[in-house]
Amino acid sequence: MGLYPEIIEKLIEKLEKLPGIGPKSAERIVYYLISEKDENVISLGQTIISLKNEVKLCKRCFNFAEKELCNICLDDKRENIICIVEEVKDLISIEKTNFKGRYHVLWGRISLLDNVKPEQLKVKQLIERIKNEKVEEIIIATNPTVEGENTATYISEILKNTGIKISRLAIGVPIGSELEYIDSQTLKKAIEGRKEL
Amino acid sequence: MGLYPEIIEKLIEKLEKLPGIGPKSAERIVYYLISEKDENVISLGQTIISLKNEVKLCKRCFNFAEKELCNICLDDKRENIICIVEEVKDLISIEKTNFKGRYHVLWGRISLLDNVKPEQLKVKQLIERIKNEKVEEIIIATNPTVEGENTATYISEILKNTGIKISRLAIGVPIGSELEYIDSQTLKKAIEGRKEL
Repeated sequence: MGLYPEIIEKLIEKLEKLPGIGPKSAERIVYYLISEKDENVISLGQTIISLKNEVKLCKRCFNFAEKELCNICLDDKRENIICIVEEVKDLISIEKTNFKGRYHVLWGRISLLDNVKPEQLKVKQLIERIKNEKVEEIIIATNPTVEGENTATYISEILKNTGIKISRLAIGVPIGSELEYIDSQTLKKAIEGRKEL
Repeated sequence: MGLYPEIIEKLIEKLEKLPGIGPKSAERIVYYLISEKDENVISLGQTIISLKNEVKLCKRCFNFAEKELCNICLDDKRENIICIVEEVKDLISIEKTNFKGRYHVLWGRISLLDNVKPEQLKVKQLIERIKNEKVEEIIIATNPTVEGENTATYISEILKNTGIKISRLAIGVPIGSELEYIDSQTLKKAIEGRKEL
C-alpha cells in the first residue's frame, strides 16, 4: 500500500513519465491540481484527451495540422522554398524569423547512437514531394550538430541530381555572444564565411 | 493565429500554469504526448479528471482520504500521539520515518506575507478533535522556518491549558552535513540541545 490514495500514486506515476518531470515535481503538480478548481482540472484532462484526436500531421510537410494540410501548406502566398528541419519545434523557431517559405519536417535525424536510419525519417516523402512541386530552393536547416550535419550531407547527396539549388544555414558567431566563449570550430567557420562590408 | 494548431496552444497554456512547468517544458510535454500511444495519453487525461472525484480530505486529520477517514485514522494500531504538520507532504515525510502515531494537517502556516490567518488553518478542528480523543502527546512538526515557528508558538499557546504534553521537533545538525556549511543559528541550537553520551 502506498502512502497516498491509489489515484494519487497512479497520477504521480504517469506524470513522472513526462519529459522534465521528476518524482518531486509530479507530487507538487498533484497537490496543485487537488487545490485547483474542479472545472480547471477537468478541462486540463479533457484537453489532453482531445489532443491526439485533433492533431494530425500535414500530409505534405509533416508539420502539425488540424486538417489534411497544415496552415503553412494551405497558405498560397508562401514562396516555393522548402526549409528542411528535424522537428516541428525547429519550424516554429524559423517561423519566428518571418521566413516566408515552406517546410519539410524530417521527424528526427540520422543517428548511429539512437539507431535512427534514413528510412525512419520523412526523406522518401521529400523526394516524392519535390517531383510534384515547383521548388526554387531547398534550405537544409538541420541542427549544426554532428548528427544534424550527417543528416544534411545525406540529404544533399540524394538531392544533388535534381537540379534544385540547395543551401545550408550559415555557421557563425551568434549575435550578442562574446568571442572568448565561442568554440574555435565555430569561430573558424565564421572567419571562412566572412562577408565584405 | 498561433504557430501551433489551437488545441496545442490551449494545452501549452494550461500546462504552463502547473508548478515548475515553464513555456519550454510545456512544449516538450506536448511533443511527448503527441508521439505517445493514444491509450496512454487518454489514460493520463482520465486520471486527471478522476482525481478530484476520488480524493477527499479525512474528516478527522485532513490527510488525503478515499473514504470519510484516511487510512491512518482507520488504523487502530496507531498510538495516540498527534503530530501536527503544515501539509500532507510533511505527513508523508514523517510516515517514511516509521512514526506510528497519528496526524493533524493544518493546510498551511500562519503568514503575514501571504495573508494567512489562523482561522484559515485547521486549528479549530484540532481543538474540537482533542476534546473527543484520548491524546497522550502532541508533537508540533511545522517547518523550522519563521512562519512555521510562529505557527508552532500560536498552537502551543492555544493548547497549553489542555494538560496534554506538547513537544516540538529537535533543531540540530542534519546527518551527513558538514559543520562549515551549517548556519550559525542551527549550530547554536545543536550545541544548546547537545546530548550526553
